[in-house]
Amino acid sequence: MSSAISPLAPKSFPDMPAIAGVRLGTAAAGIRYKNRTDVLLMLLDKGTTVAGVFTTSKCPSAPVEWCRAKLKGKSARALVVNSGNANAFTGKTGKQSTSLTADTAAKAVGCKTGEVFLASTGVIGEPLDARKFNGVLGALATEATPERWLEAAKAIMTTDTFPKVATATVKLGKASVIINGMAKGAGMIAPDMATMLSFVFTDAPIAAPVLQALLKGGVEDTFNAVTIDGDTSTSDTLLAFATGAAATKGAPKISRASDPRLKAFIKAFNGVLADLAEQVARDGEGARKLVEIIVEGATTKKSARRIAMSIANSPLVKTAIAGEDANWGRVVMAVGKAGEPANRDKLSISFNGIRVASKGARDPSYDEAEVSAAMKNEKVQIKVALGLGKGRDRVLTCDLTKEYVAINGDYRS
Amino acid sequence: MSSAISPLAPKSFPDMPAIAGVRLGTAAAGIRYKNRTDVLLMLLDKGTTVAGVFTTSKCPSAPVEWCRAKLKGKSARALVVNSGNANAFTGKTGKQSTSLTADTAAKAVGCKTGEVFLASTGVIGEPLDARKFNGVLGALATEATPERWLEAAKAIMTTDTFPKVATATVKLGKASVIINGMAKGAGMIAPDMATMLSFVFTDAPIAAPVLQALLKGGVEDTFNAVTIDGDTSTSDTLLAFATGAAATKGAPKISRASDPRLKAFIKAFNGVLADLAEQVARDGEGARKLVEIIVEGATTKKSARRIAMSIANSPLVKTAIAGEDANWGRVVMAVGKAGEPANRDKLSISFNGIRVASKGARDPSYDEAEVSAAMKNEKVQIKVALGLGKGRDRVLTCDLTKEYVAINGDYRS
Repeated sequence: MSSAISPLAPKSFPDMPAIAGVRLGTAAAGIRYKNRTDVLLMLLDKGTTVAGVFTTSKCPSAPVEWCRAKLKGKSARALVVNSGNANAFTGKTGKQSTSLTADTAAKAVGCKTGEVFLASTGVIGEPLDARKFNGVLGALATEATPERWLEAAKAIMTTDTFPKVATATVKLGKASVIINGMAKGAGMIAPDMATMLSFVFTDAPIAAPVLQALLKGGVEDTFNAVTIDGDTSTSDTLLAFATGAAATKGAPKISRASDPRLKAFIKAFNGVLADLAEQVARDGEGARKLVEIIVEGATTKKSARRIAMSIANSPLVKTAIAGEDANWGRVVMAVGKAGEPANRDKLSISFNGIRVASKGARDPSYDEAEVSAAMKNEKVQIKVALGLGKGRDRVLTCDLTKEYVAINGDYRS
Repeated sequence: MSSAISPLAPKSFPDMPAIAGVRLGTAAAGIRYKNRTDVLLMLLDKGTTVAGVFTTSKCPSAPVEWCRAKLKGKSARALVVNSGNANAFTGKTGKQSTSLTADTAAKAVGCKTGEVFLASTGVIGEPLDARKFNGVLGALATEATPERWLEAAKAIMTTDTFPKVATATVKLGKASVIINGMAKGAGMIAPDMATMLSFVFTDAPIAAPVLQALLKGGVEDTFNAVTIDGDTSTSDTLLAFATGAAATKGAPKISRASDPRLKAFIKAFNGVLADLAEQVARDGEGARKLVEIIVEGATTKKSARRIAMSIANSPLVKTAIAGEDANWGRVVMAVGKAGEPANRDKLSISFNGIRVASKGARDPSYDEAEVSAAMKNEKVQIKVALGLGKGRDRVLTCDLTKEYVAINGDYRS
């Protein structure tokens, strides 16, 4: 497994402010990894609302099933995340393991079992020994502090090469509220809830159904628009928590998603999701290039998304980018195989702003040297103009390198 | 580009018999490659019927559009195939190029332009200079012989590491008829007409609509059940030609697909298609393992196919096999993401006959050492039992190696 940091990693991490009503702690429970933290406990004050979106996999992990069921209660007091073991495809043992973990956490925190949310990431199919959380969670509940968000993001990493955090401060009514998020990638990343795990926290007083609506709306063009390898995980989980503590600073309580006072908040919230989603693409396994695919002129946005995903998931397109080759022929192939309306003779394709193909053939002004130079950039933008309608969409991915094969050909051992 | 022969290549080539009514010739027209043949001319006697199936790409190559249109004439006198340039995404020039090539061939052969069938494979987006066929086709028409089928298969190769041929001899009525086929892979291979190019010839007297029905029926579980990288080509073409010459040996003329005398012929015909399709998988770019995926107990055959394809196209499953890792967790992931009915707690998974997972968890008798040893085989069979119904299907693919990335990261240059 590679341990070098992705060359696409952000140059610095943002300062993560404390959020009133949220405390956290990390520990090394020795679930799988040596010499690193692998358990995160997030403590949430009374009155915290919760929302979540999950993998569409027909074989979801035990923690995904746990969270889905507990969302109905609309309130959260704790989040327990472990890395190293996904507790997926673990049968009855897996279910027992989630119950036992939640019981342990509930005792440590002093809350109901149903107010504990769980997420696990790592190997699939290995039983998770939840007894390892005994003692660990109790100690964490005592030691938890409002700081060390970066440490939290580190504790949930698997093949990630850097921790992923994002933050925003925005006005809600006349009060400033904070949104903090963290995520982990980096393989088995595909649409339909595109990251394995991501958690967002705010002190804004937002009712659970509203938070759920924001999350559903925000995920579509952020996490669901990122793909590393087209492989949808069994564990994809995005949870949002709102402690409501900003009400004491005068933030209005929001009980309707259509509340006009939410406008700036929604923008900031979506910005945090987009930031985290881009970091997931930047830490795609073996990634050396960040690839932005823009499809415009499609019949609908949905059609543009499907075509963009067909390009983004094409091994031939991804390997060409790894080879710094503006191989627009493979882009044509990927457009053609998407099954969506496309007219070869109206198609234009650009790489990093340089048009290489137009009206169904090579652009007459195409200059190989100019394009080759542009392909050396760390970021490659592929723009496809279909010339059919007004549908437009954007998807992020990364290149496919030998390193991806190396990482995944030797992951379990 | 790799030049080593795939370790999965057949140990020997079959002797390809002559087929009455078919002659062939190859030449080096210098379209792209140096020091190798790149043009194939197949001459077909009067009365030859033709059938074809093509890529479902919305951006098909000019030769694909040419063949689709000419199939209506139901008769063929010549097939011209070139490698090195796919004549795809070449706009009006591409269309002119197909017309010019067909004109040149028709003059050389002495037939109508509409009786000439065309196929091109190689780079997409580069104009194909059809003037290079001038003289070449004339000479080939004169020199063509009934032998040298292996040479024909060599002339149509691109990144293929070995030529792909198959043959069968079977009774039709009381006469023996011959079926010869050739194919080329090796990347941009996905369902919906899974090879870039394949051609099958027989001396059986079979009417064009019957040949079309046989081809459509035969392709479903052969070429359409093979995937290398999930990337459907713009050029996928499978053509079948029946000269009818065996009528002089007493073979009955077949004008209905339901003719009971066809039974053995259909079996042999499908066998040739299956043989060629497997060779395409065996020559998948960078392939080191042939992977057979069997899904059973699905609700329908179609559902089994979709799940098998989801497994076969998963980069995480394919890299695990490259690493000789029986990573059934990734198989669970691929089953889950297929979107088809599946019940985690009824799922069983075997690698090369060794059950590793059953009823939604690791098999109790699982022995890592035994499985590891089995994964060293050149052929890996993954069997998934869903336990839901009687739907069953089988798909062939190969592993995903660093070599695939190397081949495709540096193909154009």
